[in-house]
Amino acid sequence: MQISKRLTGLTGGGSDGWGLFAKARAMVARGEAVTELTIGEHDIGTDPEILAAMDASARGGHTGYAAVPGTPALRAEIARRVAARTGVPTGPENVLVTPGGQAALFAAHMATCAPGDRALFIDPYYATYPGTLRGAGAEPVAVPARSRDQFQPRPAEIDARAEGARSLLINTPNNPTGVVYSPETLAGIAEVCRARDLWLVSDEVYDTQVWEGRHLSPRSLPGMAERTLVIGSMSKSHAMTGSRIGWIVGPPDAISHLANLATHTTYGVPGFIQDAALHALRQGTRLEEAIAAPFRRRREIALGLLAGQDIVRLIPAGGAMYLMLDIRATGLSGEAFAEALLERHRIAVMPGESFGTCAAGHLRVAMTVEDAAFAEALSTLMEFARECATCDAI
Amino acid sequence: MQISKRLTGLTGGGSDGWGLFAKARAMVARGEAVTELTIGEHDIGTDPEILAAMDASARGGHTGYAAVPGTPALRAEIARRVAARTGVPTGPENVLVTPGGQAALFAAHMATCAPGDRALFIDPYYATYPGTLRGAGAEPVAVPARSRDQFQPRPAEIDARAEGARSLLINTPNNPTGVVYSPETLAGIAEVCRARDLWLVSDEVYDTQVWEGRHLSPRSLPGMAERTLVIGSMSKSHAMTGSRIGWIVGPPDAISHLANLATHTTYGVPGFIQDAALHALRQGTRLEEAIAAPFRRRREIALGLLAGQDIVRLIPAGGAMYLMLDIRATGLSGEAFAEALLERHRIAVMPGESFGTCAAGHLRVAMTVEDAAFAEALSTLMEFARECATCDAI
Repeated sequence: MQISKRLTGLTGGGSDGWGLFAKARAMVARGEAVTELTIGEHDIGTDPEILAAMDASARGGHTGYAAVPGTPALRAEIARRVAARTGVPTGPENVLVTPGGQAALFAAHMATCAPGDRALFIDPYYATYPGTLRGAGAEPVAVPARSRDQFQPRPAEIDARAEGARSLLINTPNNPTGVVYSPETLAGIAEVCRARDLWLVSDEVYDTQVWEGRHLSPRSLPGMAERTLVIGSMSKSHAMTGSRIGWIVGPPDAISHLANLATHTTYGVPGFIQDAALHALRQGTRLEEAIAAPFRRRREIALGLLAGQDIVRLIPAGGAMYLMLDIRATGLSGEAFAEALLERHRIAVMPGESFGTCAAGHLRVAMTVEDAAFAEALSTLMEFARECATCDAI
Repeated sequence: MQISKRLTGLTGGGSDGWGLFAKARAMVARGEAVTELTIGEHDIGTDPEILAAMDASARGGHTGYAAVPGTPALRAEIARRVAARTGVPTGPENVLVTPGGQAALFAAHMATCAPGDRALFIDPYYATYPGTLRGAGAEPVAVPARSRDQFQPRPAEIDARAEGARSLLINTPNNPTGVVYSPETLAGIAEVCRARDLWLVSDEVYDTQVWEGRHLSPRSLPGMAERTLVIGSMSKSHAMTGSRIGWIVGPPDAISHLANLATHTTYGVPGFIQDAALHALRQGTRLEEAIAAPFRRRREIALGLLAGQDIVRLIPAGGAMYLMLDIRATGLSGEAFAEALLERHRIAVMPGESFGTCAAGHLRVAMTVEDAAFAEALSTLMEFARECATCDAI
């Protein structure tokens, strides 16, 4: 029987560059020792206190249907957090709880785009972005961000592709580049959105992982609260990746329609998970900082190791749990380098090519193993890059 | 800012008849004693043993990203259950775990229909059906089932609307009618699906609540396994409504594409909830029967009370946790009757009009309060109907 073209064509066909990840996982499954620096999964589990709150909620009887838009208490707590962090007045009516950030991304594009509308996004990108836009029936249009610009997108290049577009999807702190968009970049993006009457879908799931200064949410810029849907999640900030809970913050009218969509696509989020998230958020920044601390530490380790050489060039690592390394001086593609590194040294990193065309010749390194192993893996990677650059190592 | 028309038009506009449910909930919130026989929520919570399994899984470390299509163990267990209950060879490759039955319904229509395709469904219907089809971009086309046919749909009427359709959505045991489709009805439906090359989306979430005989899954009929997507859920069978876990069973190619869609719309289901579901399914039919027992008992109570009068006519109650009552002999609409019953007797039931046009003049009564209160509420309803029918009670 025939499957709809929107599903058979969801990922655009061709290699998506994630073969290396699968290969590393298969090696691990065979019992081989592989240092995995691939996906954005913490090297800790969810905090036992959060799990205790979940269990207490479930045993306390919160096992029936929860309110589809989210429990009043959690919506209020998320609103408080967003208001405190961004200065933008935010109430429960601005918040929809979703089963994870990915569900929020999909719903946001269902709300902003009609089928066939152009939906802009920035390359390099998180792997699911183009398929998510296609799934929502939109035509994904990539706007390049360049290594030589330190992967800050140029507002003029967004503007040049905005004709017929309804939305722009950005992500800062950024996965895969580890870049935090500058205030100037965000002001320019906001200006394009206002001038072109675009929705801005602002994926801020790494908002607690900013290594210098503080997170700037574009929803706080002039005229942007009415046209911005912020994607949030407990996954990265609270090491709750497996709990599948996130949110959308936006104008009340949009949230109301998105809640209606949720009634027809997910029917809400388990009440006991919402109560666990509420407990976690009420711990405030102390817990968030504790969970971000290992990545902050490992970034410092990396800065030290990478100093004083120029074969492996670090893209300024402003935030998120990743380093983006420019390894073009080796003469190898990201894919060839990553493949060889895995084969020879049992270290798995993601080729930049997995994230679009603009990060070719780069590697994304997730800082997701303990400090000593991380330092050793990065040192090995650098030594291997030096060999590649200076002789015919491959 | 403009919201896409598919969201603003999702529920078709106008009253959806759920005002009564909201009114009853508001009365309860104000502290009034209302007997709520409205939604399909058990009067028990999730079994503590299942919650203990969830807690053990979470504390045991299953808090990171779970495999998006479902854990291998749960997919295998669901496959075993389906094979055992239906006789159709079923393996893990036939199963996608979803965050609830509603998510499964939406995904199934994303897979089967292209935007603009006609998607058939039966009226009376579960409240979200038309909006779910619209959300997936399809044009919902209702096929009437009639009270005088005991709400068994006529295959010829499905066939008459099948031109340009890609899918047919059915639900047996049925919500809202409590009817179980007969083998003849299902054989006729299967014949139309084969002749018209339709996908059959078979919502079987009430498959453990069949009061006479056993559940017949249309996937087991000749030539149907290749064109049927079965929607399953732990909500009703295991009193896990709030856990949001269900599945789709279908051909491996469809499941593979649906898993890819899940990567872009939900990113899977919490691992600890999957482990809880696995534990629950491994209890076998003992637990399922225990959870269905109160509804079986209350149906018997209702049969006794309703015998020997003809003002309130019971549609043959074959399954699910609802009774459908024909109250047209009272001269009132379902909405007027339900409204008056709530006002005068503090008993909340759903007007048939909430479920489409074909159940007008009927009431859906959820058997979701304890036996004595249920018997009392039903007796009061019957007495009120008698008053309405015999004098100008309203």
